[in-house]
Amino acid sequence: MLTLSDLRRRYQPKIPSLLQDPASIVLEKIDTLTIDTQVEPYFPLTKNGVALEGKKGSSQIYPPTKIGVFFSGGPAPGGHNVVAGIFDTLCRLRNIDPLIGFQGGPAALVSGVYRELKAAEIDHYRNQGGFDLLGSGRTKIETPDQFQAVLNTVKKLHLDGLIIVGGDDSNTNAAHLAEYFLKQNVSISVIGVPKTIDGDLQNPYVPVSFGFDTAAKIYSEMVGNLAHDTLSSLKYFHFVKLMGRSASHLTLECALRTRPNVTLISEEKKPYQRIIQELADWVESREKNPYGIVLIPEGLLESMLDKTQEKDSHGNVNLSIVNTENFVIEALKKELAKRHFKGKFEPIGHFYGYEGRCGHPTNFDSNYSYALGIVAAVLVLQRRTALMAYVGKLHKSPEEWTIGGAPLVPLLKIEQRQGALKPVIEKALVDLQGTPYRLLQKYRPAWLHHLNYENPGPIQFEGDAKITDSIPLLLHPRLE
Amino acid sequence: MLTLSDLRRRYQPKIPSLLQDPASIVLEKIDTLTIDTQVEPYFPLTKNGVALEGKKGSSQIYPPTKIGVFFSGGPAPGGHNVVAGIFDTLCRLRNIDPLIGFQGGPAALVSGVYRELKAAEIDHYRNQGGFDLLGSGRTKIETPDQFQAVLNTVKKLHLDGLIIVGGDDSNTNAAHLAEYFLKQNVSISVIGVPKTIDGDLQNPYVPVSFGFDTAAKIYSEMVGNLAHDTLSSLKYFHFVKLMGRSASHLTLECALRTRPNVTLISEEKKPYQRIIQELADWVESREKNPYGIVLIPEGLLESMLDKTQEKDSHGNVNLSIVNTENFVIEALKKELAKRHFKGKFEPIGHFYGYEGRCGHPTNFDSNYSYALGIVAAVLVLQRRTALMAYVGKLHKSPEEWTIGGAPLVPLLKIEQRQGALKPVIEKALVDLQGTPYRLLQKYRPAWLHHLNYENPGPIQFEGDAKITDSIPLLLHPRLE
Repeated sequence: MLTLSDLRRRYQPKIPSLLQDPASIVLEKIDTLTIDTQVEPYFPLTKNGVALEGKKGSSQIYPPTKIGVFFSGGPAPGGHNVVAGIFDTLCRLRNIDPLIGFQGGPAALVSGVYRELKAAEIDHYRNQGGFDLLGSGRTKIETPDQFQAVLNTVKKLHLDGLIIVGGDDSNTNAAHLAEYFLKQNVSISVIGVPKTIDGDLQNPYVPVSFGFDTAAKIYSEMVGNLAHDTLSSLKYFHFVKLMGRSASHLTLECALRTRPNVTLISEEKKPYQRIIQELADWVESREKNPYGIVLIPEGLLESMLDKTQEKDSHGNVNLSIVNTENFVIEALKKELAKRHFKGKFEPIGHFYGYEGRCGHPTNFDSNYSYALGIVAAVLVLQRRTALMAYVGKLHKSPEEWTIGGAPLVPLLKIEQRQGALKPVIEKALVDLQGTPYRLLQKYRPAWLHHLNYENPGPIQFEGDAKITDSIPLLLHPRLE
Repeated sequence: MLTLSDLRRRYQPKIPSLLQDPASIVLEKIDTLTIDTQVEPYFPLTKNGVALEGKKGSSQIYPPTKIGVFFSGGPAPGGHNVVAGIFDTLCRLRNIDPLIGFQGGPAALVSGVYRELKAAEIDHYRNQGGFDLLGSGRTKIETPDQFQAVLNTVKKLHLDGLIIVGGDDSNTNAAHLAEYFLKQNVSISVIGVPKTIDGDLQNPYVPVSFGFDTAAKIYSEMVGNLAHDTLSSLKYFHFVKLMGRSASHLTLECALRTRPNVTLISEEKKPYQRIIQELADWVESREKNPYGIVLIPEGLLESMLDKTQEKDSHGNVNLSIVNTENFVIEALKKELAKRHFKGKFEPIGHFYGYEGRCGHPTNFDSNYSYALGIVAAVLVLQRRTALMAYVGKLHKSPEEWTIGGAPLVPLLKIEQRQGALKPVIEKALVDLQGTPYRLLQKYRPAWLHHLNYENPGPIQFEGDAKITDSIPLLLHPRLE
């Protein structure tokens, strides 16, 4: 039986022209970024702040290079292609050098659980979702003992480079490891690859992380279906929570794709009571058409409680067990009761999160993550360290994408974490001055009562490129 | 911006060769079905039990024919194509006859809310999911006043036929209406079209209802993603409830498509305590690999309580508000605590239901439902009544599908409903002797601990026909 997985294994990612010949890439300094003065003391050896961009140069021969790679944090579609990109680049430029995969996330660096990745295994996972090839984990490498254990592992393996595929915390860890290795006088490149479906890892060099596009499209498929369910059943209010922790990028992206009646955005920091009042106004106004759809970002409750600083009126709420969508529904029911609303209100809560992390990557994510893998490998081959691999100009066609390495240290800010001040990469939240949000703002009043939902449908891999190769709206916001 | 909806509007459904020329179809008697002696007295005028099959005959001219159509019950992908099939057939054979759409389900027959459907509107909804064109409802037509009101509506509109797109209850209603119209000496054909994503409307002529294929594939996409999430995160047990009320067809179909570790099937009537014991054994056995995926049919709790007749040990459970998946998780947690299980058990509950009802119909459902529409129109044009339109041999290619009308009355059995004996169409449950279930049984022991989940991915509409035109496994059970 032919499966979609089989078909996808055969897909050849589209990559930037420059990456067609990775031996001829020269890295040019394009900028020197400012480093936070509070952050600087943590990184005496990696604080140069130089941003690099790859350009076409003359072909060069790379030295023997042994690379280790692992996944860190929640899975995101495209992770396997990062590994495939590294593997193919090593094969092509250094065909005898092994690629080492650490199994189960950062903890494997400490415990030394690894294996050499072989071509057959890599081929099996090309363009496949999830992090199955190696698994993942969330262990933070923080204690001196852990750092020492990591050092032992990389020394034992004679690694020349370590590529960390992860989100904000994992890239913070990459910065610390890079600094630590230099301090220990060990020559090993540490390169981060920006991963997260949440879309909250963005900086001037990284327009969006890989995985976001696939997750947003999977959620949009489900949201579009539910939107049409309201028009068909004529009696349900669907309240849909979408993954994305503090940041509402996924919710915003899905809203622009599906045009729900109401979209809540955590970053607006709208007071809780006002949200409930506005929802109640809306439900009341729909008394003759008692149906509709509301999107709720996962971080809403957290941001509401942050903002109001008031003790919740519903008693002691344990955030970890309360479903935000049901919490909103219950508050709304009480408000409607208070208003003596006599109309129909049949709400149904939904949550989409985990199902977006391991789907088959879209063509965009397949291309992007494969390119990131090649770039990360090139950065190691050129013995650069403390960088985040990046692929830029993602709103253009893959041939025109730029590539390079962004310095990790300037991305760090000091934040309070579990009672201590620590350098961390700030989460990129939805910019209320940005085009995607302003587009939502423009259409919100019209959408509140419209029924012209979009149903973008399931991700397509073959057929018209306008559908199969579409990019995140976040990169190129437009409607129609 | 080109959308998938636009692309799908242009899709030309594949239909049985016979339907290429609907003017030349002759209906031949192929069987006379037995009627339940308890049912017979309710249907003195429609109890003939004759099953008809369409064959190639000579071309005929049809009389003027005005048809009314409506959706009944929960939406299912393909409903719009039923209407398009009726519309196109009327256009082709009787180009001046209007098609009347009743808005909002059976209640519209009583209240007379309708409109004439026009070509532009029909074109907009071709191959689109949901029942948006007309909406739906669940009103039962039962009282003499309701029947009288329906009679007034069809007389006022001079309808020659009424096509009811619905599930078991709606087709039961169709049988009553057909009988009633004859009794009133009103010549109007009543034809049912078998719809339900649950797959519980099956009989010797209807291998599966339309909508099932799309819903099963949407759920399978999500389940496949979650299965791979367990392999990537290495720490979650996903418990996934799937829609399907009493019948577990959707769960069984998804299991065969994705190969989860554990699949519960309501029809097994396994005692509740044994289910929990077996799940606890499984979780214990996975102490070193604390992750996996379990499928739970929506009807499980109902069937468990039916079977055990015991008062639930967790207190007074209100079935309408308890989530079956969380109910199972909580019972399992208690059992593991009782066993002093010290391993990790991080369960996450999910429910997929509403998101399967309005997705873009698969090619199979697009073809099937469009063919059903043509068949229903032909049955009315030939003034047949009390029939369920059917399309048979669905496991073959569309050109080879058979067509015809199955008599509604022999499908009825007497059941206790809300304290009274009533003729109803029995729900078709999973057959524990059938091939799909036996296939599951065969693989279950191996799947309990395997990690070779399938990830069928999103429904594809273009590309390799082995993927785009695949049919429900229920029709053609096989693995690999």
